[in-house]
Amino acid sequence: MESITINVDELEETIQRAFEKSGASTRNARSVARALTLAEVDGKTGHGLLRVPSYIGQLRAGKVDGKARPRATQLRPGVLVVDANGGFAYPAFDLVHRQLPALTNQTGIAAAAIRRSHHFGVAGHQAERLADAGLVGLVFGNSPKAMAPWGGRDAVFGTNPIAFAAPRRAAPPIVVDLALSQVARANVLKAAEAGEAIPQGWALDREGRPTTDAKAALAGTMTPLGGAKGAALALMVEVLAAVLVGANLSFEASSFFDEEGPPPAVGQLLIAIDPRAFADGQGFFARMERLVEVIESQEGARLPGSQRIARRERAKAKGVEVNAAILAKVRAFATA
Amino acid sequence: MESITINVDELEETIQRAFEKSGASTRNARSVARALTLAEVDGKTGHGLLRVPSYIGQLRAGKVDGKARPRATQLRPGVLVVDANGGFAYPAFDLVHRQLPALTNQTGIAAAAIRRSHHFGVAGHQAERLADAGLVGLVFGNSPKAMAPWGGRDAVFGTNPIAFAAPRRAAPPIVVDLALSQVARANVLKAAEAGEAIPQGWALDREGRPTTDAKAALAGTMTPLGGAKGAALALMVEVLAAVLVGANLSFEASSFFDEEGPPPAVGQLLIAIDPRAFADGQGFFARMERLVEVIESQEGARLPGSQRIARRERAKAKGVEVNAAILAKVRAFATA
Repeated sequence: MESITINVDELEETIQRAFEKSGASTRNARSVARALTLAEVDGKTGHGLLRVPSYIGQLRAGKVDGKARPRATQLRPGVLVVDANGGFAYPAFDLVHRQLPALTNQTGIAAAAIRRSHHFGVAGHQAERLADAGLVGLVFGNSPKAMAPWGGRDAVFGTNPIAFAAPRRAAPPIVVDLALSQVARANVLKAAEAGEAIPQGWALDREGRPTTDAKAALAGTMTPLGGAKGAALALMVEVLAAVLVGANLSFEASSFFDEEGPPPAVGQLLIAIDPRAFADGQGFFARMERLVEVIESQEGARLPGSQRIARRERAKAKGVEVNAAILAKVRAFATA
Repeated sequence: MESITINVDELEETIQRAFEKSGASTRNARSVARALTLAEVDGKTGHGLLRVPSYIGQLRAGKVDGKARPRATQLRPGVLVVDANGGFAYPAFDLVHRQLPALTNQTGIAAAAIRRSHHFGVAGHQAERLADAGLVGLVFGNSPKAMAPWGGRDAVFGTNPIAFAAPRRAAPPIVVDLALSQVARANVLKAAEAGEAIPQGWALDREGRPTTDAKAALAGTMTPLGGAKGAALALMVEVLAAVLVGANLSFEASSFFDEEGPPPAVGQLLIAIDPRAFADGQGFFARMERLVEVIESQEGARLPGSQRIARRERAKAKGVEVNAAILAKVRAFATA
């Protein structure tokens, strides 16, 4: 794979133009471009530039509405229901981040449910935005079917990510972000596109047999994290992000990658908690630092997500290295 | 191990008397007896009758206050803070279940934080009680240190359970309940008490080496679920159940098993969500049944926790089989 280094602002503007030229509103194009660029900067390339061609394919085919305006309704003091209206997920998340913190500060805990949504990229970024607003954040999302229930063979659940973030006093938030498959499906997609094999233990073929063939794995199911417990957590996320939210269940959702079928119409649920609502706001930050200290004092141990800040600073100063072939495609969209 | 079958009500009354004779208030003794009996009935023997001798040892030593009265304070419309006052955890949970549903019905989502708490047994039972009140429930708890941060060697996190439950229209709730170690530490304790070996992959010794020696495992650390992701989830629970709640961090907490040191003073966080707050309450139940159906239609697949109802009915009709030696000890406490 040939790579090329590009300035971060230029990358974001190029992606934005590609979406505008393909029929997205400026506001939506900017929202999507920001999210995909940050994914690329953070090294989450399965959720970055790689997604532009398939997103644009879906946009042009009408599977995603590029001009959709998400709408929020507050149904209870602590509940915001957001209709993504068949558009990209990111503009709906932007709306949540504008409205959810104020609710949370009043009630102490609040939730936002996003329905008729689409692929939402790096789950941790959405939790991190809540933490940037001083809140503890939990984010759950469902995704097209990829994992079997424990003991079964046919895919029912998506890889259904969980993300979590918490603010610190004088440091960037702690961010946890994980898919409930042993590895993220994006890794299998990348291997399949590159024609590479995948390690044993990542996936099963459509007969339920372990496989190292990435294409057979895409047709089969992903292994749940740690076995039965990962499958149980996937069920939990399915209930939170789809059953509760009023979204398509994972096995009802169309692909995030191709132009076939109706909109995926998956769901996401955010839960935000105001740490100051729990008696001693300052105690929160002191305990957090004690926890961080005891982890970081161990040789070899580090906080999850702790490398992202250095990556972002380096990218800002020196640009980000991206796949040259995909960038060429995106530039072609941007100048079409 | 010799076992004996005992009537469920008799088991519960015997446990209650054992606690009363050891200095607990009637109300607290009843609460603890109910919880431990249900654990035993559900086959979660690591959280059942086995705990009575160590609970009573701590009660007599003053490490747990058997007469403690938990106190709840509502700090925001959606936040209940409960001080367990150094008593057993179960009376504090009883208080939460009396007060949290009404808050949740108003705000749509609400949380209860329990501090200065103790071992809370089967996490799934507390989530199930929320679901029995028509709510979707999440429960997080921290516990004395048992797992190392990823890449490290010294225990920082407890096995930090996550539980989840959701109501169904005409069937018992779905319940998910898991510790974030590859297996629950109670299994290692049972093996150590029985002088048995444990399977490879469950635990590491104090030098960080894999071990099958249950006693060496108790002195070392438990393997996190699925590796780095399990360790990240344990960090998440640590922040939710201890940092946020204002409880001891896992590495600060004393043992749940012996009489040494100050009270463990761990924490628990419950989040309750009213499914009727999300636009279409009836849609919730229809989607839930669609999900259950597609899981149960697969040969070999079943819902997590689905065997508990049959177990409870069988126990009610025919009694429950318990460890005869432990029951004899508990009877001695009850008649002392």
